Amino acid sequence: MRIVVTNCNTTRTMTEEIVRGARDAAAPGTTITGLTPAWGPQSAEGWLDSYLSAAAVLDTLRGHEEPYDAVVLAGFGEHGREGARELLDVPVVDITEAAAHLACLLGRRYGVVTTLDRTRGQIEDSLHAAGVAQNCAAVVGTGLGVLDLADSEVTVRAFLAAAERARDAGAEVLVLGCAGMTGLQEKVGAALDMPVVDGVAAAVKLAESLVGLGLTTSRAGGYAKPLPKARTWTRPSE
Amino acid sequence: MRIVVTNCNTTRTMTEEIVRGARDAAAPGTTITGLTPAWGPQSAEGWLDSYLSAAAVLDTLRGHEEPYDAVVLAGFGEHGREGARELLDVPVVDITEAAAHLACLLGRRYGVVTTLDRTRGQIEDSLHAAGVAQNCAAVVGTGLGVLDLADSEVTVRAFLAAAERARDAGAEVLVLGCAGMTGLQEKVGAALDMPVVDGVAAAVKLAESLVGLGLTTSRAGGYAKPLPKARTWTRPSE
Amino acid sequence: MRIVVTNCNTTRTMTEEIVRGARDAAAPGTTITGLTPAWGPQSAEGWLDSYLSAAAVLDTLRGHEEPYDAVVLAGFGEHGREGARELLDVPVVDITEAAAHLACLLGRRYGVVTTLDRTRGQIEDSLHAAGVAQNCAAVVGTGLGVLDLADSEVTVRAFLAAAERARDAGAEVLVLGCAGMTGLQEKVGAALDMPVVDGVAAAVKLAESLVGLGLTTSRAGGYAKPLPKARTWTRPSE
Amino acid sequence: MRIVVTNCNTTRTMTEEIVRGARDAAAPGTTITGLTPAWGPQSAEGWLDSYLSAAAVLDTLRGHEEPYDAVVLAGFGEHGREGARELLDVPVVDITEAAAHLACLLGRRYGVVTTLDRTRGQIEDSLHAAGVAQNCAAVVGTGLGVLDLADSEVTVRAFLAAAERARDAGAEVLVLGCAGMTGLQEKVGAALDMPVVDGVAAAVKLAESLVGLGLTTSRAGGYAKPLPKARTWTRPSE
Amino acid sequence: MRIVVTNCNTTRTMTEEIVRGARDAAAPGTTITGLTPAWGPQSAEGWLDSYLSAAAVLDTLRGHEEPYDAVVLAGFGEHGREGARELLDVPVVDITEAAAHLACLLGRRYGVVTTLDRTRGQIEDSLHAAGVAQNCAAVVGTGLGVLDLADSEVTVRAFLAAAERARDAGAEVLVLGCAGMTGLQEKVGAALDMPVVDGVAAAVKLAESLVGLGLTTSRAGGYAKPLPKARTWTRPSE
Amino acid sequence: MRIVVTNCNTTRTMTEEIVRGARDAAAPGTTITGLTPAWGPQSAEGWLDSYLSAAAVLDTLRGHEEPYDAVVLAGFGEHGREGARELLDVPVVDITEAAAHLACLLGRRYGVVTTLDRTRGQIEDSLHAAGVAQNCAAVVGTGLGVLDLADSEVTVRAFLAAAERARDAGAEVLVLGCAGMTGLQEKVGAALDMPVVDGVAAAVKLAESLVGLGLTTSRAGGYAKPLPKARTWTRPSE
Repeated sequence: MRIVVTNCNTTRTMTEEIVRGARDAAAPGTTITGLTPAWGPQSAEGWLDSYLSAAAVLDTLRGHEEPYDAVVLAGFGEHGREGARELLDVPVVDITEAAAHLACLLGRRYGVVTTLDRTRGQIEDSLHAAGVAQNCAAVVGTGLGVLDLADSEVTVRAFLAAAERARDAGAEVLVLGCAGMTGLQEKVGAALDMPVVDGVAAAVKLAESLVGLGLTTSRAGGYAKPLPKARTWTRPSE
Repeated sequence: MRIVVTNCNTTRTMTEEIVRGARDAAAPGTTITGLTPAWGPQSAEGWLDSYLSAAAVLDTLRGHEEPYDAVVLAGFGEHGREGARELLDVPVVDITEAAAHLACLLGRRYGVVTTLDRTRGQIEDSLHAAGVAQNCAAVVGTGLGVLDLADSEVTVRAFLAAAERARDAGAEVLVLGCAGMTGLQEKVGAALDMPVVDGVAAAVKLAESLVGLGLTTSRAGGYAKPLPKARTWTRPSE
Repeated sequence: MRIVVTNCNTTRTMTEEIVRGARDAAAPGTTITGLTPAWGPQSAEGWLDSYLSAAAVLDTLRGHEEPYDAVVLAGFGEHGREGARELLDVPVVDITEAAAHLACLLGRRYGVVTTLDRTRGQIEDSLHAAGVAQNCAAVVGTGLGVLDLADSEVTVRAFLAAAERARDAGAEVLVLGCAGMTGLQEKVGAALDMPVVDGVAAAVKLAESLVGLGLTTSRAGGYAKPLPKARTWTRPSE
Repeated sequence: MRIVVTNCNTTRTMTEEIVRGARDAAAPGTTITGLTPAWGPQSAEGWLDSYLSAAAVLDTLRGHEEPYDAVVLAGFGEHGREGARELLDVPVVDITEAAAHLACLLGRRYGVVTTLDRTRGQIEDSLHAAGVAQNCAAVVGTGLGVLDLADSEVTVRAFLAAAERARDAGAEVLVLGCAGMTGLQEKVGAALDMPVVDGVAAAVKLAESLVGLGLTTSRAGGYAKPLPKARTWTRPSE
Repeated sequence: MRIVVTNCNTTRTMTEEIVRGARDAAAPGTTITGLTPAWGPQSAEGWLDSYLSAAAVLDTLRGHEEPYDAVVLAGFGEHGREGARELLDVPVVDITEAAAHLACLLGRRYGVVTTLDRTRGQIEDSLHAAGVAQNCAAVVGTGLGVLDLADSEVTVRAFLAAAERARDAGAEVLVLGCAGMTGLQEKVGAALDMPVVDGVAAAVKLAESLVGLGLTTSRAGGYAKPLPKARTWTRPSE
Repeated sequence: MRIVVTNCNTTRTMTEEIVRGARDAAAPGTTITGLTPAWGPQSAEGWLDSYLSAAAVLDTLRGHEEPYDAVVLAGFGEHGREGARELLDVPVVDITEAAAHLACLLGRRYGVVTTLDRTRGQIEDSLHAAGVAQNCAAVVGTGLGVLDLADSEVTVRAFLAAAERARDAGAEVLVLGCAGMTGLQEKVGAALDMPVVDGVAAAVKLAESLVGLGLTTSRAGGYAKPLPKARTWTRPSE
């Protein structure tokens, strides 16, 4: 099984990290290919970045010609998911929804620990549209930007503080609220008595599940194929 | 990986059918063991049956001494799920929630096609508690009892008629709303232009996913271990 | 009018206490009979206990042959209610919903003060299914187990502390969240400027109301009579 | 026990009918006194009427000097309920909420059959504020005005047609959605296989229940006593 | 364009203040006329006042014979809105809903800072009925009565303290929760880094918008014209 | 006052039509400037188009150097709104939310009549995020594509048929669910007894209202300024 994992920003080291996380989660026969959009934001933190990222990711996907069986969208709370479902004939799994789906199986309420507080709205909307917002007790920011996550000691400390607030709000399970946090579940797991779900890993398993069962996106409603029409994907050179 | 799949009623032929469906879905390295409760209802269609079934299934699970890695509860809309999560240290996945989780990934709204209309309330409550009710467009009965599903021509016809009603209510994906329907997705798939999700298969994949990622039920809240106390699991003989 | 009040656990002293509470609430012409399940948990604190209790209570009710006019289920947040509605031709009132119904008439928001935090989920689900969750501001645990309630000084102190948290969350009325708290409303009433509703008392009054108006459970939908079929209510002796 | 039942319009024959319904429901020791507002609308069908009625009913209640133990507000979906709770030290029960509370105990979903379609909004809002809207499957109009209900053959026919629509929407229990329908439950009961709840009767039983348990409105929040201030209750004569 | 702005209480100085706020907001060609009900409460703080006010305001409006193009109802959280929509052929805008509509355009969540905590319930219900409650993060009381707002230093301090609590609850925009606060947005604006919306000003702009577009209340449903019938608007002199 | 109105697709004739609708609605002192994205889809009908459009519109806005006081986003149900709020210091009003805000003032429930059924999901999500979904009774498709709207006889017929379905679902007010329908309100108004709200016109009035009151987007939460970082807005030329 061949799964394509797309980063939603243009930072290649982050794609590598995401691919590492995806490979750790993948079943023996699954191959993971990483994609980095050729344009878009360096990191996505806010609505403007997210909308820019969505178009860039869709442009990248429509240009990707190697065959594959499923796509994982590795931007937590970022836009584009439904567009990819229209575009592609293979299953599309977004790490936001994926983490929430698995978290619902592990406890009555889950919490998301993310980067900056400003991204909470997008995450809430994304969970709502995916149909899994109901059991989300809280989305809590760590105050760290996407590209600040590298310094892992600071990250772990900020994560644990935010996790405490999620627990106070009723969370029994935690979700890593950024693709760049992939792998962190092991570092924080020891200090927390709660399961920690990584969206990248979760999305890989859900993509494998759908492919394994021969299931793909319904064409019978909102995710019908895009209509044929003129679309300009890039600013005309002046 | 060893997954135990429990039927929720005492009908052994149905356990066999469920095990067959589970094996079809399982990954190469996964072994499936079926359990049939030694007591309880012959089939579960209604609240009384469901509560009786819940106690019998929990009693069966607590007496099952072979080691295993995850449990699938194969009663659509039946009770007991949260009790199994308290009881066991391995992940527990119920076919009701499992089908809904995967269906959410395939379309904007899903519909459940089940047996008798009387079971709709239980299914709605089960989806609500699992946190995946929001995108359920409708739960529709076929008018067939659990043990009437065998005659597959009648079943297919009743399923297709009910599916039509679910589609009119907005469903873009269908869920087989009874463990006894496992396998039916292939028979109805040709006649419907929508993905059809079988809960047994979905639950096996989600159980494999959780085990694969080393995740299990949170003990940090509602699913803490049962307290030590006197419990009598069966009527004392007179 | 003859009302049967069933304890949901096997502790007879608790049945006696519940019967005392029910008799205090009953109208002059009402007789109260207590039932103690012959099997099940010693006390119900958690999902496993609750599902075990549900089957044991239903088994007890189906074996109870004296005539009566209504049943009160005296387990706060415990399962079984809908099964009893299918089983019996007389009205069935559960103390969870009963307390909430009366509390809604007394203030804009109510709070539930219960035993252990772990039971909050069940109570929330039970209120939701009963249709009266909307105006519940909070379900707060005292940290006391069901069988610890006897030591009333500790109980009163823990109750008042939990009541404060419910008030902070917006509660204007309190509900005693355990059958074993019946009678406590008088001990805490002096220290609180809020009405305190006891579910046992509330359920007796609602049962009297339904019987007085000649109303009983609808058979026109989810609570139709159980289908005739083979049901084994107890583990076969080995 | 002394219960005051207030009509919400100025039509005295309707007050008499309501008192008759209330007396049929009352327990042996309960006395029922009817009140007719001295001003207000002849019948209440719409928001304007309802707000006019609310002030007139509150004015009537504050001028009523005979002692009593509880008040029933007999205007289905009409305003004023929360004001009466502020004004009075005795329990206040509105027939809208009362019918819904009892209906929730009898089936999973209930439906309201009312007079003109234009009153549906008020009824929905009233049920929502009372915290019992969740399990309401539909509010259906018969097309008959409040004062047209007298001709009972037409009324029965219109009621049965509307009941059918409520059932199709999922109702398992029906509520008479107008004080002027009191008594109708017997005439339509034979033709319907569902329980039919009369709000006047339900409110009398709930008022008796609260008084019997020594419960009254909470002063700890929204229903605190009205502040002392200048209030002019009627237009100054010119 | 001629807009009538009705105070909801009998305090003329407050009408003047409201008219001042309305004129500050009005477009060049708009004339503002203030109305003070001839009867009703001196100030509205609670349900009783609100229902009394509703009837008095409707009585005042039906007696107002000068021609005008729209009405602004200047009672925050007070009743009567829907009745005025039935009564009048011109658009009716209530300051509660108006402030919320504009606030929704300025941030993801808004908060209301009002007078006494006891009015929170009415405000919540009014926002709900108007369809704009979803993004309201909190309704917070300052502890000041309507007629205490004059002392502006105390008012500003209390407002800022309450604003802090609204922000902690997630508000990104604030709404002045009392007609008597009109003008305060400038005094508190400097100290807060959030937009502050005055309902009087907002309602004037929305009324101008509707009139400018030739839109008025739908007669096709709940806001149909009041039925012709006998209505007594005042207590008969004894 | 200078308002910029951006089309969300690249079809210039549609921009002209939108500008015409905006000018018809604008107050005397308001100037309207139309923007057409230099890239993006020819028309937006579906998620892929909408995400492509969002990036193109944001790119167009960030490159627009003439001074202006507010922006209207003229894509019904299209993405980008929140990104524009981050990007710009002036108020941003989207035609989807604008139409809904005004519709809520005119009736208890509104309905949206749009182009293809496939766009319903986006519209529902957009209304939800804007906080005005609650009173939306239905989003109904006409079956016409965005660029098919020109043939107005067919359009009127399809609109009226869809309007009937919205009314049956409870709508008392209609919303034109596509920027390309602007002006249609007059053609269908005669045949319908309901107010019809055009989003372009509504957004102009709301933008004027915000500017008139000196209000702009809150920076205190989700709509903080975009962080400084590297962003590539278009595919690098190869």
